Amino acid sequence: MERFSVVYRITGNEQEAYEKAKDICLEQTVEFPAGLVPPGFIQDEVVGQIIEFISDSATSYKATISYSVGTAAGELTQLLNVVFGNISIKPGFRVEEIILPESLTRVFNGPRFGIQGLRQLLHIPERPLLATALKPMGLSSGKLAELAYQCAIGGIDIIKDDHGLTNQSFAPFKERVRLCSQAVDRAGEETGRKSIYVANITGPQEEILSRASYAKACGAGGLLLAPGLAGFDTMRRLADDNNINLPIFSHPAFLGSYVVSPNNGISHYTLFGQLMRLAGADSTIYPNYGGRFSFSREESSSIIRGTGAKMGEIKPIFPCPGGGMSMENIPDMMQVYGPDTIFLIGGGLFKKGPDLVANCQYFHSLIENSVK
Amino acid sequence: MERFSVVYRITGNEQEAYEKAKDICLEQTVEFPAGLVPPGFIQDEVVGQIIEFISDSATSYKATISYSVGTAAGELTQLLNVVFGNISIKPGFRVEEIILPESLTRVFNGPRFGIQGLRQLLHIPERPLLATALKPMGLSSGKLAELAYQCAIGGIDIIKDDHGLTNQSFAPFKERVRLCSQAVDRAGEETGRKSIYVANITGPQEEILSRASYAKACGAGGLLLAPGLAGFDTMRRLADDNNINLPIFSHPAFLGSYVVSPNNGISHYTLFGQLMRLAGADSTIYPNYGGRFSFSREESSSIIRGTGAKMGEIKPIFPCPGGGMSMENIPDMMQVYGPDTIFLIGGGLFKKGPDLVANCQYFHSLIENSVK
Repeated sequence: MERFSVVYRITGNEQEAYEKAKDICLEQTVEFPAGLVPPGFIQDEVVGQIIEFISDSATSYKATISYSVGTAAGELTQLLNVVFGNISIKPGFRVEEIILPESLTRVFNGPRFGIQGLRQLLHIPERPLLATALKPMGLSSGKLAELAYQCAIGGIDIIKDDHGLTNQSFAPFKERVRLCSQAVDRAGEETGRKSIYVANITGPQEEILSRASYAKACGAGGLLLAPGLAGFDTMRRLADDNNINLPIFSHPAFLGSYVVSPNNGISHYTLFGQLMRLAGADSTIYPNYGGRFSFSREESSSIIRGTGAKMGEIKPIFPCPGGGMSMENIPDMMQVYGPDTIFLIGGGLFKKGPDLVANCQYFHSLIENSVK
Repeated sequence: MERFSVVYRITGNEQEAYEKAKDICLEQTVEFPAGLVPPGFIQDEVVGQIIEFISDSATSYKATISYSVGTAAGELTQLLNVVFGNISIKPGFRVEEIILPESLTRVFNGPRFGIQGLRQLLHIPERPLLATALKPMGLSSGKLAELAYQCAIGGIDIIKDDHGLTNQSFAPFKERVRLCSQAVDRAGEETGRKSIYVANITGPQEEILSRASYAKACGAGGLLLAPGLAGFDTMRRLADDNNINLPIFSHPAFLGSYVVSPNNGISHYTLFGQLMRLAGADSTIYPNYGGRFSFSREESSSIIRGTGAKMGEIKPIFPCPGGGMSMENIPDMMQVYGPDTIFLIGGGLFKKGPDLVANCQYFHSLIENSVK
């Protein structure tokens, strides 16, 4: 049976790390004492196999471990479980990369739009895209819609709910989504330029699909979902839904614990690149380097690689760096990111001056100029 | 408006930690530059408030931050988001405890059974419960059912799927659940003693409820779900479903990254105690101290406290320590845990000797003797 593999970085000296690699092989599959594993199929196929073990640093090793494709049962949840279910609970293991054969990537549709699809939807063939977030939480739906209108007039392509806006009484989901969708549509009619409003549908499990349908019916052009809160497979389910058929923007909320400890968790490359694609995001939002979060330039670059690395027929997606971005660092960011990027400025857009439309236009001009 | 609060442990000296506490207040709510937050309702109600800030250790402080109940929108997903959404991405923040007023706990039904309900279901009024897991992955459904039968004959109360058993071709979900349910029923008829088979329904989002219904129809007595894979709110949705009405056992797979780094993430108390209860688990499975995982005795004890601490009307639930438990440490565990515990032995049950029924009987007798 075909196999997929996972590269783990393991902390320890050579002997410790090798023992830990052997532990992964059992822990992630049979969870059974080594001496009692039945010979034959289970020992030969089901138990993980160390296919490479190399030095990584003075205190760590990289082990590549292969698993039978059959253990993942064609399910994203179970694939995640085999990759990192129990071993996440032991210290000193970090998933660096997952390597999937076509027999496994074929099981997942991945993003519906990807880079090309989103560009077509927005009629923007080449330049980076501009995004902002409607905030602060506590504004009324009407006020948020007014901001959405101004941002669209000012030339922002993607105007998303702040990820904390769900169904609060001060801006209820339906009212907010209706008003913001209408506001962005109205701006589009005035400017002749396409912007989309992206509604946050992260919420109760039984309401996610109906919120998505409602947003679509209102004319929203995309959906925001935080898989750390709603589940990766909920995003996959959403992306697979032919009736919804809207681009999905993934938000990193509640996922920080996977990346914040350097010797544990999941690499930025895999979490914000590979897994978001497998789970159907068309764009992966994450904290930019140099902002108010702590991601390094190298970590940001690794996410970009993860958004585009070959994974069967799974489409490449837009990296969407945000989080404390300022207009001033756009030129440097252009060097790191290149044109297939969505630049997300939230609070920074308001800092520039009191005229939001003018701020948006300035942001837009910076992007236009940076690609000339 | 009423407020709930969260105790964060923050790494840094006093000034750094206090700045970080102020950062939480903004980051978890308005995500907006402090100077631009609109005065009035948003500044006074929506932004988080530091209500206590005390020294915790030479390198850390504890900040208690209150939030308006309205920010959580009555949604578990959004409550988690306010508690730890964005701030999870910054290093040096750990959620120690969440403190919810009745106006917020009332929104959640929590576990349907809890300790008393599960005891009634099993007709075991006082003693600790015994649990095991069907393994290793790779066995056929028929072989797993045979193991289930033997465990039930041997006196194990709760016989659960190993959490890696989902819908693999070598033991497909429907076949496995049908055969294992029947096997445990048959044993019950022979012994006159009630055991339950707990089916793992972690799987594709669109199939979780139907798998639960199928398991119930087959006679399964409980459900296993890994909220790290399927989403906490998926578990809440399942627990709230009146048609399902089965006890839920939560599995810690894929959640380790929240607890494995001491200065980041979420405390054992909150993650495996408070959050599992809020999300509807009747029993929380987690790695025991002294097993093959790294939880300390103190961390295990904190989980026990979390399973029972007052949270409005949310029921107390069973801690279910497992993971590398051996029969030898049961007497010590009885000291730590007391009778309201589910002792889960998986692989260790097979290590004792070749006769599984005899091993189960020995396990049972150890528990019986330890409470005399």
